[in-house]
Amino acid sequence: MSEPTNERSSRPTLAVVGATGAVGSVMLGILTEREDVWGEIRLIASARSAGKVLRVRGEDVVVQALTPEVFDGVDVAMFDVPDEVSAVWAPIAVEHGAVAVDNSGAFRMDDEVPLVVPEVNGAAARNRPKGIIANPNCTTLTMMDALGALHEQWQLTELVVASYQAASGAGQPGVDRLYDELEVVAGDRTLGQRAGDTAAAVTAKLGDDSPFPAHLALNVVPVAGSLRDGGWTSEELKVRNESRKILGIPGLKVSATCVRVPVLTTHSLAVHATFAREVSVADATAALEAAPSVEVLDDLSAGVFPTPASTVGGDPTVVGRLRQALDFPNTLDLFVCGDNLRKGAALNTAQIAELVARELTA
Amino acid sequence: MSEPTNERSSRPTLAVVGATGAVGSVMLGILTEREDVWGEIRLIASARSAGKVLRVRGEDVVVQALTPEVFDGVDVAMFDVPDEVSAVWAPIAVEHGAVAVDNSGAFRMDDEVPLVVPEVNGAAARNRPKGIIANPNCTTLTMMDALGALHEQWQLTELVVASYQAASGAGQPGVDRLYDELEVVAGDRTLGQRAGDTAAAVTAKLGDDSPFPAHLALNVVPVAGSLRDGGWTSEELKVRNESRKILGIPGLKVSATCVRVPVLTTHSLAVHATFAREVSVADATAALEAAPSVEVLDDLSAGVFPTPASTVGGDPTVVGRLRQALDFPNTLDLFVCGDNLRKGAALNTAQIAELVARELTA
Repeated sequence: MSEPTNERSSRPTLAVVGATGAVGSVMLGILTEREDVWGEIRLIASARSAGKVLRVRGEDVVVQALTPEVFDGVDVAMFDVPDEVSAVWAPIAVEHGAVAVDNSGAFRMDDEVPLVVPEVNGAAARNRPKGIIANPNCTTLTMMDALGALHEQWQLTELVVASYQAASGAGQPGVDRLYDELEVVAGDRTLGQRAGDTAAAVTAKLGDDSPFPAHLALNVVPVAGSLRDGGWTSEELKVRNESRKILGIPGLKVSATCVRVPVLTTHSLAVHATFAREVSVADATAALEAAPSVEVLDDLSAGVFPTPASTVGGDPTVVGRLRQALDFPNTLDLFVCGDNLRKGAALNTAQIAELVARELTA
Repeated sequence: MSEPTNERSSRPTLAVVGATGAVGSVMLGILTEREDVWGEIRLIASARSAGKVLRVRGEDVVVQALTPEVFDGVDVAMFDVPDEVSAVWAPIAVEHGAVAVDNSGAFRMDDEVPLVVPEVNGAAARNRPKGIIANPNCTTLTMMDALGALHEQWQLTELVVASYQAASGAGQPGVDRLYDELEVVAGDRTLGQRAGDTAAAVTAKLGDDSPFPAHLALNVVPVAGSLRDGGWTSEELKVRNESRKILGIPGLKVSATCVRVPVLTTHSLAVHATFAREVSVADATAALEAAPSVEVLDDLSAGVFPTPASTVGGDPTVVGRLRQALDFPNTLDLFVCGDNLRKGAALNTAQIAELVARELTA
């Protein structure tokens, strides 16, 4: 573990729980790039990964095993781990004096836990009776900065959303599986044109123990998350319930269809958004351009529009294809892309943690 | 050219214009598989392809060059060619005595040309003052059989659609380009995780002369067709205008976002459909199961849902993920897949041609 510098000794201590995972790896890069507000940074993972050395802020840091004592002296503890790990360990971190910023689904809909996107509802982070602040689901997060900016002026009432979700939403196993599948199909140009043969080839070569419920190469899979009442998936209900909570619109009407596509990183959403007040494309574009965390790429005549490839690795939510719905009043259709590992996960978590750091040092 | 058998001599003569293209190739397979209602089948293409020998109905047929005289004696002429070729040559085929069944966009919105999906509005094919019957755009066609069956009972009023369109919608060059791109990205596991690098790698290796406005491997491209007023694309307006015409609902409210995905064949659609009358998932499922050209794959608890890979090569429209919208009255959300080269193009054209053949021999 690196020693804090003198300057750092007055700053809050941060713990990154899940430092070796897909989101954790992106987090270390983000902590290195952003203005440094932290004293010590402790990297924490399962006992299996303890002793590994990872780099953050240009320094080597030894990964520590997850124990209650590791939170002693920690001011802010980020959790990039599965729901069941957060459910147990975030309260333990709080007992040891930390504010927990949790990127799992364990606490998001808890009335006593704020669900925060700093650009949209940053003030909510101060009201945390359990000492826990939740980071939204990556699919919801993809559109929150853009919709928050529009809602502020025109009051959002209805959302119909279809997603194009990346494999890395399922972590590193999702990325590895997609690459494995691509290698099977890339060279065989007879595939994908006859009944079921892409699926058969992938299954024959790789087996069907994928993190996805169907193969993804040369395919799209209209299932993300687990099955809930009425045929809805957990991911689709998260988009509905988390959008309502973040935007503070309990009666927001939402229908979402969540679909996995063969993209590695960056979720995209086709959004059909209805507002209480009349809104023009020009005014909406101006509002989005004025939002510091949103980038507008919208000039089809010049070939300018958002795609996952032009979004990955960047911080902003990228918006394009803004159109006035032809048959629906006060309604815009738009296409939104966001890096699901950055703004969709690590970046937003880091931003929440920085809000708390500023509060602690104010 | 093969000689007609005696039995065939009493049957109508068919011409397939564009026999060597992506849709034409699928058409030859479909004509071979289906009940044979044709006498002579003439295969027609550009002068460049004349003299090629193709197989249809188990026989070798020599491709003829497109000339006015080639339509002499033809009863039904199918056109699987670009808009500008159909615009000139379909009327010439009609002058020479044929009924033209056109799969281009040249005549679809012409008031004197019926736009036909046999299962939905087959009777419209008889009213053809110009002697031309149009086949719908493949994206629209993907959902027509399913929506027609639902509209018949519950009266469709609103549609919000997001598409997941296959590369073969851009013909063989689209398929070839996607495979070329997949070969570039498949083996390089550092790609697709950093800003813009997938796009850069593809462009560096293959150049940017793609039929698509951005690379497609490990990406999705929210543009199909050309730019029209208000930022809408031609493809999105086709979904609106053709759905209205086929279903016979001039005031149908439609918003569509058309997106190309790295799939070879089969278009998918996330559909949010609102009806005038209350509709349950159970009743809608029963109506869809009763529609002969629709297959319902909808049991998420058993891992049963439609994907392009499970749809390609088949005739039915495949529907799944049927849900009652939680916040919108009389509204269903569903996911629909259809083979864009079969029902979306060649199969529907063949079915229309067969309607005419039955009419001519009745």
